[in-house]
Amino acid sequence: MDTVLPGNAERIDDILKKIERTKQARRHKFYLRDEKITLSHGSGGKSTHNLIEGVIAPAFSNPMLDPMDDAATFTVSGTDQRLAFTTDTYVVSPLFFPGGDIGKLAVHGTINDLSMAGAEPFYLSVGFILEEGFPIADLRKIVASMAKAAAGAGVSIVTGDTKVVQRGKADGLFINTAGVGIVRATWPLGQTRLQPGDRVLLSGPIGDHGIAIMLAREALEIETDVQSDTAPLNSLVASLLEAAGDAVHCMKDPTRGGVATSLNEMALGSEVSIGLDEHAIPVHGEVRGACEILGLDPLTIANEGKLLAIVAPHKAEQALAAMRSHPVGREAAIIGTVQTEPAGMVFLRTDIGGMRVLDMLVGDPLPRIC
Amino acid sequence: MDTVLPGNAERIDDILKKIERTKQARRHKFYLRDEKITLSHGSGGKSTHNLIEGVIAPAFSNPMLDPMDDAATFTVSGTDQRLAFTTDTYVVSPLFFPGGDIGKLAVHGTINDLSMAGAEPFYLSVGFILEEGFPIADLRKIVASMAKAAAGAGVSIVTGDTKVVQRGKADGLFINTAGVGIVRATWPLGQTRLQPGDRVLLSGPIGDHGIAIMLAREALEIETDVQSDTAPLNSLVASLLEAAGDAVHCMKDPTRGGVATSLNEMALGSEVSIGLDEHAIPVHGEVRGACEILGLDPLTIANEGKLLAIVAPHKAEQALAAMRSHPVGREAAIIGTVQTEPAGMVFLRTDIGGMRVLDMLVGDPLPRIC
Repeated sequence: MDTVLPGNAERIDDILKKIERTKQARRHKFYLRDEKITLSHGSGGKSTHNLIEGVIAPAFSNPMLDPMDDAATFTVSGTDQRLAFTTDTYVVSPLFFPGGDIGKLAVHGTINDLSMAGAEPFYLSVGFILEEGFPIADLRKIVASMAKAAAGAGVSIVTGDTKVVQRGKADGLFINTAGVGIVRATWPLGQTRLQPGDRVLLSGPIGDHGIAIMLAREALEIETDVQSDTAPLNSLVASLLEAAGDAVHCMKDPTRGGVATSLNEMALGSEVSIGLDEHAIPVHGEVRGACEILGLDPLTIANEGKLLAIVAPHKAEQALAAMRSHPVGREAAIIGTVQTEPAGMVFLRTDIGGMRVLDMLVGDPLPRIC
Repeated sequence: MDTVLPGNAERIDDILKKIERTKQARRHKFYLRDEKITLSHGSGGKSTHNLIEGVIAPAFSNPMLDPMDDAATFTVSGTDQRLAFTTDTYVVSPLFFPGGDIGKLAVHGTINDLSMAGAEPFYLSVGFILEEGFPIADLRKIVASMAKAAAGAGVSIVTGDTKVVQRGKADGLFINTAGVGIVRATWPLGQTRLQPGDRVLLSGPIGDHGIAIMLAREALEIETDVQSDTAPLNSLVASLLEAAGDAVHCMKDPTRGGVATSLNEMALGSEVSIGLDEHAIPVHGEVRGACEILGLDPLTIANEGKLLAIVAPHKAEQALAAMRSHPVGREAAIIGTVQTEPAGMVFLRTDIGGMRVLDMLVGDPLPRIC
């Protein structure tokens, strides 16, 4: 924690040196030294980026993949329709948790990735990996939950595949969902599109999903009512785009790696700085309490029904009003501003008046969160 | 094996009774009695059908999913372009085998599913599940193999996702690929489209993939040069459609469950009978030999680079010539004919002059073949 209290021992030139060191470190950030996969490669944070940028992205490099947005977009040849295409695999443990299950998560997650590209989701595929011995009654529950989630969000599951592996070669059930949607945003949108002066909007309290999973998983003696926030964001995004149009520069759902990782990806992608006000960031009291007990930062914890939107200042209030008038955005807030320097970094103005560099998630305190 | 030799003990009315019993059994075929997932639910054969028709399809039911073809197709709103969308998960073991690896298979498999819908494949997604401890050097090989396979077939991998699970909760690496393509066939195509009189074309020898995997997996003392036939079928399909146009009624790549299962699916889908000539079905000598030793039927073994095409009789010879003039169809053959009765069944006229009912694959002699 690089907390800098005003009047504290750390002087301005120490802070500047620290910033310079961080920037230098980031230039080398995608050198992958590991020889074996570790759990932190699945965190969604820094190790995941190292793996993807060091191994996967260079091999597949192409103009549609390289922006590394939540979905790829392309124009259908012979038409002026743009489509979005995305995929996500779900390995959450446990399969059933307060507020949801792996099936609901898999449907909402892919709907949300399409929504983040400014697309209206239409069609999903589903790929199951089942472990020998998995109870068919549980599969029925998960499939019913997927069907309900899809119907609730107005999408159809149109194609699928089922594989089975021997006992001990999987963990009950894994689900992949891919999705296709029609892009409604006619302007460029994505993590390379942030402009200095833009406002950072967040659709509601953070950390619910991660903490709900953690408490469901560990037999912790913490009694709470925390539920996963899993929700489809397509209708919230439609309201936001209607209210703010091309003033919306980027949308991201802060899943693995949390708000901290999503904003760092944007700051790197657009070569800008992002300053956040800690006091403006909504966190449910029970989540904050659980984080304190467990030594976790709510800003790095996964959310499955929250939206970060980067909006030009002249439309920020309209965008906020649109989000607040939507059922899944009632607690939306403006939590920060995009700045010019130091490029590629995110800062948090803390409640106690200090300032700290907010890095991507490092390590993986909560493996298999989604 | 319901082999019926002419002049043998089994009389015609016994055969007719057997057929009636089979037909009755098939009316109840999708009643799922199992309480737990077994390996045969992943075989691609009868148990897989019971699982999908008994649990998954009813929950997701919609007009795009219900035909149960290899890919779903839809028209892009506001245009007259039809797209195809498909998904497949790969859990093959071992990851590397003679003729290929899981990455090559995952790219070719999804290309082929799109091709079977009469679509030109364009874009793939990839979702990895990695087990903690998996060697990054192997991941690099697999990713390079995927990139090469995609480039070789003229498709791009445009979006992806990577998850990691703890040691012992997966088996090295699993891959999901989904894909999107543009439908070039302007006529209805699929397993409900077979007509009596149609010819059954097969693009080459069967069983190579399954036997290559089996021999790579088991430390069997059988020395062969059998290699997986994994290959992209998009360019073969383009040649076939150019030669035979709307005389092509259905295409299917006989993967899990083999030729026997694919043809049974078609016979059920179109409520027709299919008669095959065993002597016309190409099988490499080494594959035939390995099958005899292992007690397997080449007709139920998976192929990863073969095409079954159902073509109206007036274009069957042109279709065959087009396939034979293509590098991956040089050994193509006409192996059978579509008939009216008994609907929903496949028969094999054996080399020795008998006839047997050819059922879908039952059980799973070769789990995790793809």
